[in-house]
Amino acid sequence: MLEVDINADLGEGFGPWKMGEDEQLMQLISSANIACGFHAGDPSIMRNTLLRAKELGIDAGAHVGFPDLVGFGRRRMMIDPQTLCDLVLYQLAAISGMAEMIGHPIRLMSFHGALGNMIAEDEELATPLVAAVAAFNPELVIKSSLSPCIRNAAARCGGIKVETVFHADREYDEQGLLVSRKLPGAVIHDNQKVMQRVSQFLHEGTAKTIAGNTITIPARSILVHGDNAGAVELARAIREEVIRLGGKVVPLSKLSSTLG
Amino acid sequence: MLEVDINADLGEGFGPWKMGEDEQLMQLISSANIACGFHAGDPSIMRNTLLRAKELGIDAGAHVGFPDLVGFGRRRMMIDPQTLCDLVLYQLAAISGMAEMIGHPIRLMSFHGALGNMIAEDEELATPLVAAVAAFNPELVIKSSLSPCIRNAAARCGGIKVETVFHADREYDEQGLLVSRKLPGAVIHDNQKVMQRVSQFLHEGTAKTIAGNTITIPARSILVHGDNAGAVELARAIREEVIRLGGKVVPLSKLSSTLG
Amino acid sequence: MLEVDINADLGEGFGPWKMGEDEQLMQLISSANIACGFHAGDPSIMRNTLLRAKELGIDAGAHVGFPDLVGFGRRRMMIDPQTLCDLVLYQLAAISGMAEMIGHPIRLMSFHGALGNMIAEDEELATPLVAAVAAFNPELVIKSSLSPCIRNAAARCGGIKVETVFHADREYDEQGLLVSRKLPGAVIHDNQKVMQRVSQFLHEGTAKTIAGNTITIPARSILVHGDNAGAVELARAIREEVIRLGGKVVPLSKLSSTLG
Amino acid sequence: MLEVDINADLGEGFGPWKMGEDEQLMQLISSANIACGFHAGDPSIMRNTLLRAKELGIDAGAHVGFPDLVGFGRRRMMIDPQTLCDLVLYQLAAISGMAEMIGHPIRLMSFHGALGNMIAEDEELATPLVAAVAAFNPELVIKSSLSPCIRNAAARCGGIKVETVFHADREYDEQGLLVSRKLPGAVIHDNQKVMQRVSQFLHEGTAKTIAGNTITIPARSILVHGDNAGAVELARAIREEVIRLGGKVVPLSKLSSTLG
Repeated sequence: MLEVDINADLGEGFGPWKMGEDEQLMQLISSANIACGFHAGDPSIMRNTLLRAKELGIDAGAHVGFPDLVGFGRRRMMIDPQTLCDLVLYQLAAISGMAEMIGHPIRLMSFHGALGNMIAEDEELATPLVAAVAAFNPELVIKSSLSPCIRNAAARCGGIKVETVFHADREYDEQGLLVSRKLPGAVIHDNQKVMQRVSQFLHEGTAKTIAGNTITIPARSILVHGDNAGAVELARAIREEVIRLGGKVVPLSKLSSTLG
Repeated sequence: MLEVDINADLGEGFGPWKMGEDEQLMQLISSANIACGFHAGDPSIMRNTLLRAKELGIDAGAHVGFPDLVGFGRRRMMIDPQTLCDLVLYQLAAISGMAEMIGHPIRLMSFHGALGNMIAEDEELATPLVAAVAAFNPELVIKSSLSPCIRNAAARCGGIKVETVFHADREYDEQGLLVSRKLPGAVIHDNQKVMQRVSQFLHEGTAKTIAGNTITIPARSILVHGDNAGAVELARAIREEVIRLGGKVVPLSKLSSTLG
Repeated sequence: MLEVDINADLGEGFGPWKMGEDEQLMQLISSANIACGFHAGDPSIMRNTLLRAKELGIDAGAHVGFPDLVGFGRRRMMIDPQTLCDLVLYQLAAISGMAEMIGHPIRLMSFHGALGNMIAEDEELATPLVAAVAAFNPELVIKSSLSPCIRNAAARCGGIKVETVFHADREYDEQGLLVSRKLPGAVIHDNQKVMQRVSQFLHEGTAKTIAGNTITIPARSILVHGDNAGAVELARAIREEVIRLGGKVVPLSKLSSTLG
Repeated sequence: MLEVDINADLGEGFGPWKMGEDEQLMQLISSANIACGFHAGDPSIMRNTLLRAKELGIDAGAHVGFPDLVGFGRRRMMIDPQTLCDLVLYQLAAISGMAEMIGHPIRLMSFHGALGNMIAEDEELATPLVAAVAAFNPELVIKSSLSPCIRNAAARCGGIKVETVFHADREYDEQGLLVSRKLPGAVIHDNQKVMQRVSQFLHEGTAKTIAGNTITIPARSILVHGDNAGAVELARAIREEVIRLGGKVVPLSKLSSTLG
């Protein structure tokens, strides 16, 4: 049977400020990437999001980012790798400890925004950072867009698991890498077009590149961007499409299907 | 045999800024209260301090504080108790996770600065915060100045251990509470006078109050303020005095003596 | 002719996070209290809000607050008065310089949130802070809720102008002070009830206290809380009521009416 | 007569943390580059530094940087130019307003750390930022290391004045640009060697490049790095060398000499 994970970035408010429709999204998705207080989120938002993830039975993931609230972690910062590892460990530790206490341990992690982009494209950076994650908790699953850098880094540090995430609303290049957000058309805002891509992915495990070719996307998880307008509708449509195909939405850590 | 712990606040730099003579102090003390990034400290300073504590075999403690770097956690903030619990858990989790990874787990915790003062004097605040610490890790030992509030709170939440710390350079009132830093004379800057208080404490387990009376200090640990000039000399003098008395400086978690 | 100012707190987003319906509100009000980056706002939001205030011909005011983004400046911080003066001057200077450059100088200032409450009720705090504002720019008009402390402080420092603001959605006590937000019923959420208070204020210059008595409100300006749901509707209703009475909504700095 | 300015970066503490020997340095130099709270400094440190600069009759300059305290503004951040302009204006406005109030207006400005490096080497970035400075206050003098980018940008925006600063302790390349701090030997730590370079600069207006050639340095100001050990001794030695040569140390804004 078709089993697929739907995940979204959550807990991205800060203090009095809200972002995204967390409560509605959480009822539709199966795993949550929770901000850890550096690019978004604060301790109370983190605890509340973890509690809700536990109640709803969805996977809790750590979403670690640059220490740049005002820039939402979307601006590249030239931080030396050792300092970056320390930043990532601090965030992983903070959310993991809170999650343990709540009784809903962190199973997944991913790199947010500019940090994610830099690691996905630079093996020299990916190597120490993936190793730091593995040293912190080798049971974690790293979620990322298609990235040979991250896969190589994971292999080199003893095989921490990496899961590819399908970005339904982003254009891909010929190598399966995400086209930069800065380029026109890189983000697909038309939900109908996004749903066509989701259907193709669910049926064939493929996506069309920006140049019009077809590539394989070896993913078991679909990302919905929680801060977009229409995120809730999109999540619902994806969920319904999975069910229409006779499939099931399952948290990444509980997927029985394997890629192959 | 006389066994006593000497502890100091460490890891209180931030980014490029240093504070205190951590390296020298760590060779003289037996337990470290390490800042967790909210009032001081950053992830790299935390990791380095934890690593050094491990190498030197001294206890690592979490020193949690208000989210107020520029005020160094010394300014009272009226934060509601639930939010404060979340802030404290975040800090405890961050440093505990980093310490676990390094292989030198956190054994102790204490509340820094204005947060410590507020909790020590307000049972309504102490109750949820001590309970949060106990819920996070009931094996932790809470270090504090003499505080019935904290002791009562600890008793109420199932008996998390509380150790009293002797502040050698602070005046006490008749109840054994610290005289406020803002009052003239509250902090004793004369190291000779401080050493007399240390000797009296080591010999008799007592201290003179600001009014001139003698009170019992049921403590097994002496605090050296790491940010004071002369902290290293003071720590060395205390250590030598302990040894001169035939005693031994021992990390709090390894003390065999009990109070009685 | 009845002339009255309608003002609201604006520019209270931060980085990617929005707060309030600034664009819609600015078309209805006549003066803006713009956050200066300490409790909310960032340099880009400040510049954009100033530019829009200029285009719409509404007064630009500095809204200065505690250095506490995550708490939105609503948590009391025990900062010594000299340091607080420096914080306020920094914020006043930052927004004033940006506004000068844009060609729409700052005319008004007010203290936000917990800082505003503390200053309104403590003359020892009001005295140095009001003096600092006057020293920075004696042409500024300080807006506040009814506060003898602020009026006395202003008189003492040579007469910087103070304008009282009518809080249509807040309960008053017998002295005309705002009932604390923490008390039940202190904030009036029923817009119909708020509009009754506005009508009474516009007709008679009075308000009903929480105990049911009537007090005079010597104000020429009505505050609309921008972060409330319904703020836009409320602002529109107030504006229409003013016009229905044959009056006019006029920026505070351009009011020809005087009190009395 | 030889007139030369000696300048240093000052006010680089933050909250309880000190950096550099500001008081001693200020008695030796003639102009101060004062941090504005983004990479270092806080409102109280800014005010105190401005007051002391006034008392000592030395030029006050704004030292603007990236919003990155923990990284001390030394890490490149990929911030879009408009947002960067806003950040710079906010800082310029904050310090300029405080300085005006104190009665010692800001005459100079410079870009700190990574921001300075990025602007010095990228004309597309220099153009909007220099224009923003000129729009804020065309009377300001921009201080920078040798940079055609900054000079071109200044020329394009109507001729805001640019003064080159001689970095006595940094190696130059053949174009007169500073060799990156990351390269070995780029920073000269041997004060004797630094003094030889100062003497050559004072006598001939030249410096030796890292490749051993001689280039002209069209500067009237020498920078002493305040955060280096030995900064005070170096400043004193430079001051004495100027006097020994029959010259005078004069604030940049009061130099009568012209280049050429």
